[in-house]
Amino acid sequence: MLYLIGLGLGDATDITVKGLEVVKQCSRAYLEAYTSILTVGKEALEEFYGRELILADRETVEQEADSILKDAKECDVAFLVVGDPFGATTHSDLVLRAVKLGIPYRVIHNASIMSAVGCCGLQLYNFGETVSVVFWTDTWKPESFFDKIQRNRQNGMHTLCLLDIKVKEQSLENLMKGKKIFEPPRYMCVNQAAEQLLAIIQNRKLQGEEPEITENTICVGLARIGATDQKIASGTLQQMTMVDLGDPLHSMIITSTLHPLERDMLKLFAVDDSSFTN
Amino acid sequence: MLYLIGLGLGDATDITVKGLEVVKQCSRAYLEAYTSILTVGKEALEEFYGRELILADRETVEQEADSILKDAKECDVAFLVVGDPFGATTHSDLVLRAVKLGIPYRVIHNASIMSAVGCCGLQLYNFGETVSVVFWTDTWKPESFFDKIQRNRQNGMHTLCLLDIKVKEQSLENLMKGKKIFEPPRYMCVNQAAEQLLAIIQNRKLQGEEPEITENTICVGLARIGATDQKIASGTLQQMTMVDLGDPLHSMIITSTLHPLERDMLKLFAVDDSSFTN
Repeated sequence: MLYLIGLGLGDATDITVKGLEVVKQCSRAYLEAYTSILTVGKEALEEFYGRELILADRETVEQEADSILKDAKECDVAFLVVGDPFGATTHSDLVLRAVKLGIPYRVIHNASIMSAVGCCGLQLYNFGETVSVVFWTDTWKPESFFDKIQRNRQNGMHTLCLLDIKVKEQSLENLMKGKKIFEPPRYMCVNQAAEQLLAIIQNRKLQGEEPEITENTICVGLARIGATDQKIASGTLQQMTMVDLGDPLHSMIITSTLHPLERDMLKLFAVDDSSFTN
Repeated sequence: MLYLIGLGLGDATDITVKGLEVVKQCSRAYLEAYTSILTVGKEALEEFYGRELILADRETVEQEADSILKDAKECDVAFLVVGDPFGATTHSDLVLRAVKLGIPYRVIHNASIMSAVGCCGLQLYNFGETVSVVFWTDTWKPESFFDKIQRNRQNGMHTLCLLDIKVKEQSLENLMKGKKIFEPPRYMCVNQAAEQLLAIIQNRKLQGEEPEITENTICVGLARIGATDQKIASGTLQQMTMVDLGDPLHSMIITSTLHPLERDMLKLFAVDDSSFTN
């Protein structure tokens, strides 16, 4: 059996009792380590689970899936994913490959950032399409996510922005030389995401547009949701460029029309109460 | 401290290790029992947690919140919610009241149906507004959710439909007589939701409209997600009137444009493969 097990958000103790039982008894346990992170590393998980974990980076999962699935017809293999196995990232490829090989599979769900952001008080019902905000480079500054946020807002829907993660990336030079030297991991913070959004708004204004989203649009910055030291800050997009939310992972929400109860909840996390007076 | 603890979906073992520790050691533990259900009842939870739970129905939570929060400044009180405490239903009211009373609170997240539906293979990114489908009565047949589904679909977004739950409802007669006699709980199944949608489509056609959603629109029926005996069925809306998914809780998804990987995943659950050939 292939078990896809969500680890939730936070630390080692956020796994479910059901998930922990499987992790303890299975033959091999892989840790997917490229789409999200917990506040603790592999070693802390191994200590809590009382077993060895095999780190599975993107290359392993995409190119060596068969080694992950080896013998999974006869024994139990666990594939551990931060959050939920079908949350922000789906692992459909692995499931489809398992099914093709006649290997039964089971999903053990857990909290995903896609639903846990509800803790800021915004109704999950009222979210539209989720967008990814990627790190801009000197030559690549995609803006398409901005149009999705605008469309959501026009329809009265909030937008969850998942912020870029760069793990095990090679520099262009090392890539061309075929050198397997990796850059340090990078995680986009709320400040950077807000800066990029403001830059797009500037661009649009220069082009004569009147963007639906402005520097005064109410946003929510979230960091390390589920961890003991999680932080939530609400305020204008402009204020989001200045908030200090600390270590990764960060996410950001661009709000649309706020219901009174949503507004009351967001005020609990206000950078500056006066942002909510209008 | 007030702890809002998600129980996840499925059974008693779907609580997180972190959540279980709090439940075991807190002074009082309430079980919110009117917005969702697990496949096991209060007794099974009490046995697994090794402690007594206080059942909190809608009346208690809405009218006697102060009794729930009593002494929570000095001792730990746990409020247990099926799924995630800020998932399909938010418990903002309770949090706001706690904050007002100067009681600190913490959320222990878990799987919510809002994200767990990703296990059918549809990307959570591509979901628009979530809708609730309520039981129609002879005199009350709201259709507004249908327009939301249509708008989502026009925007290329799937729609999660949460199906009605009626717990501790009084008949009109008993309500008028002030008799606290409650009807047996009712949970809408996928067949009923599909029938109501087909009825709306018929109505719209009679009014000369050409609905975006038809009897051939691909839908997904989901039952008891997270439980060992969960069931998923994909097929046309027409087929959804006939699938037998068994016991509650059920949810339904109305799909929009399917990406190839989404289509491949949905085929795993097809009522009839030929629905996916067009």
